[in-house]
Amino acid sequence: MSQGIAHVSVGEQFEGYLLIKSADKGVASNGKPFLTIIFRDRSGEIDAKLWEVMKDDEEVITPESVVHVQGDIRQFRGKPQLNIRQIRLATAADGIHPEDFMEKAPVPVEELQEYMTKTIFEMRNPNVQRIIRYFIKKYEHELFTYPAATKNHHEYAAGLAHHIVSMLKLGKQLSELYPTLNTDLLYAGIILHDIGKVQELSSPMSPSYTLEGKLLGHITIMIDEVELAANELGIEGEEVLLLKHMILSHHGKAEWGSPKPPQIREAEVLHLIDLMDAKMNMLDRSLEKVKPGEFTDRIYPLENRSFYKPTIE
Amino acid sequence: MSQGIAHVSVGEQFEGYLLIKSADKGVASNGKPFLTIIFRDRSGEIDAKLWEVMKDDEEVITPESVVHVQGDIRQFRGKPQLNIRQIRLATAADGIHPEDFMEKAPVPVEELQEYMTKTIFEMRNPNVQRIIRYFIKKYEHELFTYPAATKNHHEYAAGLAHHIVSMLKLGKQLSELYPTLNTDLLYAGIILHDIGKVQELSSPMSPSYTLEGKLLGHITIMIDEVELAANELGIEGEEVLLLKHMILSHHGKAEWGSPKPPQIREAEVLHLIDLMDAKMNMLDRSLEKVKPGEFTDRIYPLENRSFYKPTIE
Amino acid sequence: MSQGIAHVSVGEQFEGYLLIKSADKGVASNGKPFLTIIFRDRSGEIDAKLWEVMKDDEEVITPESVVHVQGDIRQFRGKPQLNIRQIRLATAADGIHPEDFMEKAPVPVEELQEYMTKTIFEMRNPNVQRIIRYFIKKYEHELFTYPAATKNHHEYAAGLAHHIVSMLKLGKQLSELYPTLNTDLLYAGIILHDIGKVQELSSPMSPSYTLEGKLLGHITIMIDEVELAANELGIEGEEVLLLKHMILSHHGKAEWGSPKPPQIREAEVLHLIDLMDAKMNMLDRSLEKVKPGEFTDRIYPLENRSFYKPTIE
Amino acid sequence: MSQGIAHVSVGEQFEGYLLIKSADKGVASNGKPFLTIIFRDRSGEIDAKLWEVMKDDEEVITPESVVHVQGDIRQFRGKPQLNIRQIRLATAADGIHPEDFMEKAPVPVEELQEYMTKTIFEMRNPNVQRIIRYFIKKYEHELFTYPAATKNHHEYAAGLAHHIVSMLKLGKQLSELYPTLNTDLLYAGIILHDIGKVQELSSPMSPSYTLEGKLLGHITIMIDEVELAANELGIEGEEVLLLKHMILSHHGKAEWGSPKPPQIREAEVLHLIDLMDAKMNMLDRSLEKVKPGEFTDRIYPLENRSFYKPTIE
Amino acid sequence: MSQGIAHVSVGEQFEGYLLIKSADKGVASNGKPFLTIIFRDRSGEIDAKLWEVMKDDEEVITPESVVHVQGDIRQFRGKPQLNIRQIRLATAADGIHPEDFMEKAPVPVEELQEYMTKTIFEMRNPNVQRIIRYFIKKYEHELFTYPAATKNHHEYAAGLAHHIVSMLKLGKQLSELYPTLNTDLLYAGIILHDIGKVQELSSPMSPSYTLEGKLLGHITIMIDEVELAANELGIEGEEVLLLKHMILSHHGKAEWGSPKPPQIREAEVLHLIDLMDAKMNMLDRSLEKVKPGEFTDRIYPLENRSFYKPTIE
Amino acid sequence: MSQGIAHVSVGEQFEGYLLIKSADKGVASNGKPFLTIIFRDRSGEIDAKLWEVMKDDEEVITPESVVHVQGDIRQFRGKPQLNIRQIRLATAADGIHPEDFMEKAPVPVEELQEYMTKTIFEMRNPNVQRIIRYFIKKYEHELFTYPAATKNHHEYAAGLAHHIVSMLKLGKQLSELYPTLNTDLLYAGIILHDIGKVQELSSPMSPSYTLEGKLLGHITIMIDEVELAANELGIEGEEVLLLKHMILSHHGKAEWGSPKPPQIREAEVLHLIDLMDAKMNMLDRSLEKVKPGEFTDRIYPLENRSFYKPTIE
Repeated sequence: MSQGIAHVSVGEQFEGYLLIKSADKGVASNGKPFLTIIFRDRSGEIDAKLWEVMKDDEEVITPESVVHVQGDIRQFRGKPQLNIRQIRLATAADGIHPEDFMEKAPVPVEELQEYMTKTIFEMRNPNVQRIIRYFIKKYEHELFTYPAATKNHHEYAAGLAHHIVSMLKLGKQLSELYPTLNTDLLYAGIILHDIGKVQELSSPMSPSYTLEGKLLGHITIMIDEVELAANELGIEGEEVLLLKHMILSHHGKAEWGSPKPPQIREAEVLHLIDLMDAKMNMLDRSLEKVKPGEFTDRIYPLENRSFYKPTIE
Repeated sequence: MSQGIAHVSVGEQFEGYLLIKSADKGVASNGKPFLTIIFRDRSGEIDAKLWEVMKDDEEVITPESVVHVQGDIRQFRGKPQLNIRQIRLATAADGIHPEDFMEKAPVPVEELQEYMTKTIFEMRNPNVQRIIRYFIKKYEHELFTYPAATKNHHEYAAGLAHHIVSMLKLGKQLSELYPTLNTDLLYAGIILHDIGKVQELSSPMSPSYTLEGKLLGHITIMIDEVELAANELGIEGEEVLLLKHMILSHHGKAEWGSPKPPQIREAEVLHLIDLMDAKMNMLDRSLEKVKPGEFTDRIYPLENRSFYKPTIE
Repeated sequence: MSQGIAHVSVGEQFEGYLLIKSADKGVASNGKPFLTIIFRDRSGEIDAKLWEVMKDDEEVITPESVVHVQGDIRQFRGKPQLNIRQIRLATAADGIHPEDFMEKAPVPVEELQEYMTKTIFEMRNPNVQRIIRYFIKKYEHELFTYPAATKNHHEYAAGLAHHIVSMLKLGKQLSELYPTLNTDLLYAGIILHDIGKVQELSSPMSPSYTLEGKLLGHITIMIDEVELAANELGIEGEEVLLLKHMILSHHGKAEWGSPKPPQIREAEVLHLIDLMDAKMNMLDRSLEKVKPGEFTDRIYPLENRSFYKPTIE
Repeated sequence: MSQGIAHVSVGEQFEGYLLIKSADKGVASNGKPFLTIIFRDRSGEIDAKLWEVMKDDEEVITPESVVHVQGDIRQFRGKPQLNIRQIRLATAADGIHPEDFMEKAPVPVEELQEYMTKTIFEMRNPNVQRIIRYFIKKYEHELFTYPAATKNHHEYAAGLAHHIVSMLKLGKQLSELYPTLNTDLLYAGIILHDIGKVQELSSPMSPSYTLEGKLLGHITIMIDEVELAANELGIEGEEVLLLKHMILSHHGKAEWGSPKPPQIREAEVLHLIDLMDAKMNMLDRSLEKVKPGEFTDRIYPLENRSFYKPTIE
Repeated sequence: MSQGIAHVSVGEQFEGYLLIKSADKGVASNGKPFLTIIFRDRSGEIDAKLWEVMKDDEEVITPESVVHVQGDIRQFRGKPQLNIRQIRLATAADGIHPEDFMEKAPVPVEELQEYMTKTIFEMRNPNVQRIIRYFIKKYEHELFTYPAATKNHHEYAAGLAHHIVSMLKLGKQLSELYPTLNTDLLYAGIILHDIGKVQELSSPMSPSYTLEGKLLGHITIMIDEVELAANELGIEGEEVLLLKHMILSHHGKAEWGSPKPPQIREAEVLHLIDLMDAKMNMLDRSLEKVKPGEFTDRIYPLENRSFYKPTIE
Repeated sequence: MSQGIAHVSVGEQFEGYLLIKSADKGVASNGKPFLTIIFRDRSGEIDAKLWEVMKDDEEVITPESVVHVQGDIRQFRGKPQLNIRQIRLATAADGIHPEDFMEKAPVPVEELQEYMTKTIFEMRNPNVQRIIRYFIKKYEHELFTYPAATKNHHEYAAGLAHHIVSMLKLGKQLSELYPTLNTDLLYAGIILHDIGKVQELSSPMSPSYTLEGKLLGHITIMIDEVELAANELGIEGEEVLLLKHMILSHHGKAEWGSPKPPQIREAEVLHLIDLMDAKMNMLDRSLEKVKPGEFTDRIYPLENRSFYKPTIE
């Protein structure tokens, strides 16, 4: 597992520990059951087939479990596929933890926490600061474990915090260039804008959408939370309205899920920074995988474009 | 005021009481100040000019006041315009009330109240019923004075309640045809869907958008209200989520201001009924003004179409 | 065939009568021919394979025939597939009729006929009534056998009549709420709007599009029919024009196939009722298949949405 | 009237005969009535005002009358306006005919008739030929007096025939380059495609839309006519269907008013030729009005573009 | 190879020479390597599988090579597939040339050259003529070997020249009908508009997009070339600007890749002629493959329409 | 002229020097000529009327002249209008320069020059650096006098350089956050992306579009310039292609005028930075004009939104 499951080659043997992301049962053309599994480790994912399914296998092979696997790497529809020969649940004796199989933010969590704490400390508007402290405390665990999205960008452990901190840094630079920006509002908007995702998504490890996520979405969820928080903290005043507006409008326009477009300067900047950081994260992660002179795969949320990696320095 | 200001003809004299909807100051090409006023009574509106402005006129001639006016009906850009000769504030002695100058719902308010009360009484789901009672009580005054919109449809006193009751009747009929509908949810969604407008709009008489209305909109405002109400009433459970979803999705799609589209049957029906009743109200009010064999003016929210009034019975 | 082919489970044996919807020949990787068949009965459809094709099989196994089949239910790409072991044509001795294998409207045909007859009887405009009688007579058979569409909604025997009658009921209710509606026009528009489908589609049992259907479509076909009928009946006057306009505009706008949008009140209502009944039919049929707390499959003509079935009463 | 009303300059006197296109009554700010008139002659149109309206003037000054006018050319909102000093109806003694004030096709009507006759004579498919003869006979007058549109292109007397003949010439050339085209179908489609306009428009001289034109449109009108003609002539067969399809699809796609897009080669070519000839007519007429090195006014149906007239030879 | 590879039937044996268009390696479910090849000859293409891959096969079986092949025609997913039994490189002794396996323009190259030469000879504007001569000389080889596109229309050897010459003929005919057209500009625009494709595409035989093609596109490439040519030839004046404008705008609008829409008459005509000739080429080639009474496959660039081939003469 | 013409109030007298932006002749309803003038000074613009036009006035009152004006501030259609009483050309004796009446960048030109020079000095890629030096030298005057646009953002003297330098600062900050960016490419793209505007616009003072600007646009103009520069400097290699690609794609997508979307990371960033700086400039300039608690006018290029200025600190 030196390099991880994303780096195996067709024809190789594989032996090692893997996390089960999903497992689905099928029936082969000979009438026998088989399992289609997606495994993951920190390097990425691989599809797999288990053709000889034993009686108990189905109960054992479930999402979020870690297993020890032996098998061969075949090719299926142009991609590697792991053909399982042996599989068993990892035990306590193996000394393995599911978290070790998740991709992590490229920055230590402590650094993210520290940066965020410092930013909040420097806020001058007491109402804004109290609301932010309320949520940082309420979600101190989730903020530093959840991804920022289920796919596309910052889709790794603490991706949410990583995204927030990158945006805070961008925000700080922009406010030097454009000194009219109200930094308290801007930083608060950045910290709050996506926290609703911790209720929209089911778990940090293999996230799917919750019922609330499907019927309301993270924007509406978070606006309700701010309303309740302000109510509980006894805060009244334009700050609450402006923060709700920033959350509501951060997708930029109706077609993208914001029923009101940005109508204060800080909301417009929040939207632009969010776009910028998400795009840079996607681009960097895609370009990392190709050599100079090559094009990346098509990147769906970047209008399905391929990007070229120049050969010049 | 026999027939009302909407029915005067060019060349006529006018004398009577009118409500001031708006008043703006201008300076004429001879350098003298004048006032451009919009008057209204129950029949409709008229533009007016006051060319000889006295010192105190500007303070006196303010929106929502009732005045006694004498003048001539001229024509300006193809429409009648009232050229004011005399104007004074109505006094207590005149026995005039601003409400008398508002267009009213074509159904008595008592009837609307009674129908709504009966509907709520018949609800069987206690959580849904309690939430609805909470709002009926909280907004008992606003519900029966506010219009349903600033223009286009149900833009008259108690228009909001009139729109709700028409939709409830439609909902009742549909649930006879399609018995799978959950009537508690449907009726509750109908009653709540537009109540946010009492905070989105500044007043029932000459409504403009409030800051909250502009930055959040009536949908978001109402979802917050439901969240707070459920919190205050101690209600938990899918009902709260479903009611919030119905409010959130009632505009039908993102481009129309609903970040989530309807995802339960009752939400889809709520959207369709809302559309149907708004369209019928607009159509009826436009067709009323033309004779058989004629076309109406273009109706902007009906994709700017003109409608033909047939000559056959 | 107790429950029908839509309710078999993977691993089961099947023996019974089925209607052939389509049959296509293929050549397997071993060079031998095989048949891919779609069977149907009243409960729904199933894909099937016949791997050992005998000489005469191809002539015998043809669309719209009823056969007796034995085989096993396998799984193929996540769906059940019938692997045929034995197959033979049903004979007179089997006492089986193709019509028995079609899904039927959930209301008896007699009831639909009666409701329609009553509606026509109550019409007061003689021109409108004569035109409607003409078509009811001309298509008395097709109206009560054809589906309203090849898929999506009312796609069962007499689906067309079922759709019309539901819409008539909706129309009746609406005209109580909005008494300005001309019911003769509205009901006539409802009855005529989709009859062109009996020429657009090839047959009631396994409908495909006719050449006329592809090059002209049911709207244009029906307008021509009304023109010829009025000509034959010697009817002149606005009624003919208005009925043609209602048919022409019932899809609501150009992008949806109506070169003119509704321009009379009754045409707008026809369009809205058509939408409402089609959507309710789709929703009911999809939600029927899932349990409370689950989402339906994505429903393509409802903007590809999934719908949630609430758990509350 | 040497050069015509389109060529007068601000400050000039005008005396001559003009056709009244429209006349509307207004009331001036001094309370007196006035008339706003649009005059036309063969060169174009001019707006005019008659400030001193005599008792009988209103009855006399009506659309489609020819009058003798004296006045001055003023400037109003950047355009010349004729300020009327004297006006009287033209009498028999003046020897003036309304037709002389209409713009005419740049090709003699006889030439257009002859070309069309020759084309029909050369058709080889008897069904197609009989249908075309039927319509040429039925509309022999209208075809050679109506414009092809109320504005934008070929909006002059016999514009319809001029448009048809230009398209026939284009069609002939294309069928030399692409010999697979069925010329009978193509020529027949060209001749029929816009004839419905003679019912869609009220008159050749100052056309407005008829009720049938508004509720059905020229495409639907013409398909009905072909249906009746084929019925009357006893013609059956694919020809009728194909001609109806060509008429139906000649606007190219649903958004442009064709519920079915072209599905035979000749229908696609008909659509392209129609576009080409309309565009060339608009371009030529706009570029005629400017000098080399200048841009034309914006041309609305050409996506609101201005076109540049090169200075090179 | 009598009729060519596009005309084989399932079940037949095949023996003959074929050009390799592409070859990809896979690994079968039994772990053994195989090759998926696309072969072509003048008649069209066929997919093939080589299951028993020898050591050297991979080096030998490369794109643009000609091989001698023996095998059987199987069916795979509804299309014929060649199952290879024997394969070897063609040798000098076989007397075979890759060009013989390319589809060719339906007109001899000499004829295309002659027509183009004659057109250039007749130009009267010396600046325009010199620029055209420059490019005809620079690309005398590429012009008469490259296709006009990688797929859809004129995708055969000398397709580019064939497309240009058809458009020149169309242009000549149009300028007879619309004599205001500047033929020098129009013909020059036709000749230049797509020449950038010889740099956008990698080779005439199995074209893919070059880096310059992907990052700039043939329009931008060609505008740069005209700039350099004019610079080198010392030509100044409106001609250069107008030719660049025609190239820039020939896709008609921004969404289709022309940042400026046509703004001179000749540019508009160039765009229309390009569309017309591309469409006719696609239509003819698709309709050729079906019998009267049938529909073609869906044609993607013609809005995915199927076209019907009439049964009448 | 203490505060400037943008700050006068209705009813005031005005006396001072103004620059004529445009002057158009009209004829009043009394038949007399008058002039409609737009004046500007550094603070903004005002509309004006000169009713008594003397013989020589028309020749004297021409765009880009400075005049001494006396008059009264009236109100016309809700905006102040200067009614001219006296007007004369400024003379040498007045000591007035047209440049003094242009709005200026809020940063001294020297500072902009210095920042740009420093940036170029730090470039490490010699090809990129030479191309940039070439253009800085070629347009050393225009770069520091032209606006970045005719309206909306940076529409003041040296606005182009101001826009470039703000973007360079943004680019420097981003490359600290996202160290994978190639700063040479990014900075070069920023400097070149809009220089084509100095040919697209006619002059720095009252810019209109040149013929080249209308028919080609600044993107195409600049790509040609880079091609010629590279040719002249003898530079080959990917740098030239990448710079052309960045210029070509900087509007982000086809609908916005970039026929190719960004396909390298630096091109995507260039597009985002351009958007960001233009939006911030517009927002700052609009919000400057309103007080806390107010909304700005609608800002057309920001999707016509109004922005709210918060009342909180």
